[in-house]
Amino acid sequence: MSFVEAIIRKRDGGRLTPEQLEQFALGAGSGELPPEQLAAMLMAICIRGMDADETRWLTESMIRSGERWQLGAARPDAVDKHSTGGVGDTVSLVFAPLLAAVGVPVAMMAGRGLGHSQGTVDKLEAVPGFRCDWERDQALALIDRVGVAMLAQTKRIAQADRVLYALRDVTGTVLSLPLIVASIMSKKLAMGAATLVLDVKCGRGAFRHTPAEALELARALLELGRGMGVRCEAILTDMNQPLGPALGTACEVREALAVLGGGGSAPLREATLALARIALSLAGRDATTADQVLAQALADGSALAAWERLVEAHGGDPDPERLARPRLRREVTAARSGFITGVAAADLGWVAVDLGAGRRSRDEAIDHGAGLLVHARIGDRVEAGQPLGTVLIGERPVDIESAERRVRDAFEIGDEPAEPPALILGTPDTLTT
Amino acid sequence: MSFVEAIIRKRDGGRLTPEQLEQFALGAGSGELPPEQLAAMLMAICIRGMDADETRWLTESMIRSGERWQLGAARPDAVDKHSTGGVGDTVSLVFAPLLAAVGVPVAMMAGRGLGHSQGTVDKLEAVPGFRCDWERDQALALIDRVGVAMLAQTKRIAQADRVLYALRDVTGTVLSLPLIVASIMSKKLAMGAATLVLDVKCGRGAFRHTPAEALELARALLELGRGMGVRCEAILTDMNQPLGPALGTACEVREALAVLGGGGSAPLREATLALARIALSLAGRDATTADQVLAQALADGSALAAWERLVEAHGGDPDPERLARPRLRREVTAARSGFITGVAAADLGWVAVDLGAGRRSRDEAIDHGAGLLVHARIGDRVEAGQPLGTVLIGERPVDIESAERRVRDAFEIGDEPAEPPALILGTPDTLTT
Repeated sequence: MSFVEAIIRKRDGGRLTPEQLEQFALGAGSGELPPEQLAAMLMAICIRGMDADETRWLTESMIRSGERWQLGAARPDAVDKHSTGGVGDTVSLVFAPLLAAVGVPVAMMAGRGLGHSQGTVDKLEAVPGFRCDWERDQALALIDRVGVAMLAQTKRIAQADRVLYALRDVTGTVLSLPLIVASIMSKKLAMGAATLVLDVKCGRGAFRHTPAEALELARALLELGRGMGVRCEAILTDMNQPLGPALGTACEVREALAVLGGGGSAPLREATLALARIALSLAGRDATTADQVLAQALADGSALAAWERLVEAHGGDPDPERLARPRLRREVTAARSGFITGVAAADLGWVAVDLGAGRRSRDEAIDHGAGLLVHARIGDRVEAGQPLGTVLIGERPVDIESAERRVRDAFEIGDEPAEPPALILGTPDTLTT
Repeated sequence: MSFVEAIIRKRDGGRLTPEQLEQFALGAGSGELPPEQLAAMLMAICIRGMDADETRWLTESMIRSGERWQLGAARPDAVDKHSTGGVGDTVSLVFAPLLAAVGVPVAMMAGRGLGHSQGTVDKLEAVPGFRCDWERDQALALIDRVGVAMLAQTKRIAQADRVLYALRDVTGTVLSLPLIVASIMSKKLAMGAATLVLDVKCGRGAFRHTPAEALELARALLELGRGMGVRCEAILTDMNQPLGPALGTACEVREALAVLGGGGSAPLREATLALARIALSLAGRDATTADQVLAQALADGSALAAWERLVEAHGGDPDPERLARPRLRREVTAARSGFITGVAAADLGWVAVDLGAGRRSRDEAIDHGAGLLVHARIGDRVEAGQPLGTVLIGERPVDIESAERRVRDAFEIGDEPAEPPALILGTPDTLTT
């Protein structure tokens, strides 16, 4: 069967068969299908769409394109968490030790930075010595020892996804719902997550801008996950402004430590607690005491202690003094007085990437000292000259003036008070958009 | 400007700018844009379409991707002819010497076989010694000397088309009207045709099946050509069955010689005369005497003499005895009596290709002795055992039984008389489909 036939079927709006999607995924993973045929199929799918069955068939074939770890079969109570990508999204660094501290094991497959979003693996590697490149047996041992395994996707998991992901980036086919769903879920399911909490971001700093778009994605992820036997729930959270105040790697670890120690950013704490509450509920824990149990772990030092155990078990040095520091700090101040009416979150994410918190090309190194701190949120009253953010400059050569200007321009200041957006929009079951 | 931006614009149904189309065509021609990005753009164009302006911009950029010969500027009265591809389409072999015989010079850019269609260059090369790989100066000298230059597209003309054509074949994007138009016209215009006659085939053996589809293509070709200052006209001709009785290379040259000598296939003669009449009219010759002038040239031996001069000037040996002959001939007879109600022309074209008249892979050699002769046309009454076709077997190893069966199966025989389809459907101006 020629693959051109499959491309033509989707080009004309037809429905692909399981065999055609298998040919697509395995051909991508093995390198048997050339990039031009994969790209043509990606564009046809992007424009014509795929139904829930096609999406599931593609996901299943993508899983078969690589290794299957079946972690859930070995540790059925381990929880995974996925965020669809935001700015200042430090949640995973708090979520994992917090759950371990209250007795819910975590097996989290984390990613690297993508576009304007910083990646959890990059952030963890800001901790000297921290490693995420564990094999299956080592991952199980980590869960048994400290209740958490933080894992980077290996090359052998969902091989098709690695190939298709790189192609989507250069062919304008990133924003396809079925392709996003298959990409996320193939990795999670190849790893074998049995319990999964999904944080679907929504707003100007997210890949899905409107609540309706985010809801559509959340529902598609849940339908696929539940259909494949995964206990999962999703929550929609706001990404119209950075979630936490820190955008970078070492600076986000510092912010996570502040929250784990009972202080830190209120929105970051609130979003993490909402996700942790869902994880406890999926784990079958008593819902009436969940809030109290979680608050207690942050207050009594047990979450922070879990972080230290987690870091040591992953080869890292938990001493916060060992985290990289910026070479230079520059305050960015408000040019006028007024109310913050909007924040260009994605622009701020890109500033952080350019400063060193991300890679602008595949081979670029992360500069752990670099990043950005954000001091103002939508609805805040600011005076002219008041700091809006702090640019953290590391070793990467950067245009400081331009970074300052971009940070200043990212804050919209008006004369009328603005309503701060709700942080937690709800779960798909409670939303009716 | 990132090319991904251009891909995304077309993906979302937007209109590309001249700059974006220039980036596409020059990036394809130079190899600067990778195949996956070209393929994604081709699919987006194929699904979303392009308007007449975009098609013209793409064509202009494709012309700029290679050499420009400007033959029309040097020989403004030279005529080119293009057929959109059919089966048994021996017209060019008759058309070129016939026009030269009546004093209208021809500069024809001819192609090689494609899919189930045999190519004019392949047919000419059945004549021992015949060459089509002339440079611009040699082409002008041929026109001056014998009134005809038969030219194969060089690698340096419309380079983008070579790259995009090969990609379209494997990415399911062949059947896109604007891409077909840009491909045809970029080559013609890069060569610099000043006068162009278009033979748009229509029917089961053509790439456009219905008259409406063929008319749409003809109108788009004319709009683009006329907009770029080319004198051109199109005619729609039937391709529900092979045009001439011969499908192959040497066998088609023999059939052309028969028509040039005043005999031969009536439909082949009729179609050629219709196209030659248009060429005379575009050349400003008296329409009232055109039919007589052309018929005279076929009757008095001057067309045949022009063929011999043409062949010798192109390095070939005009002696028909030197043409390759089949090693073996097999009659295919009707299994039952009745009326021919349909002919699967494309299937017959593929049989000829498989026998040796075409290439099934890029490196395969043409077998000039091989081919197929067709003896029955739609509407004919046939008796069981009467020959429907003759399989011409050359040196290429073939499954003779299978070829015979495929030829027999290509003829649909019914009990009721069938109306033969009209050979000439008309020009876009006279058609109102």
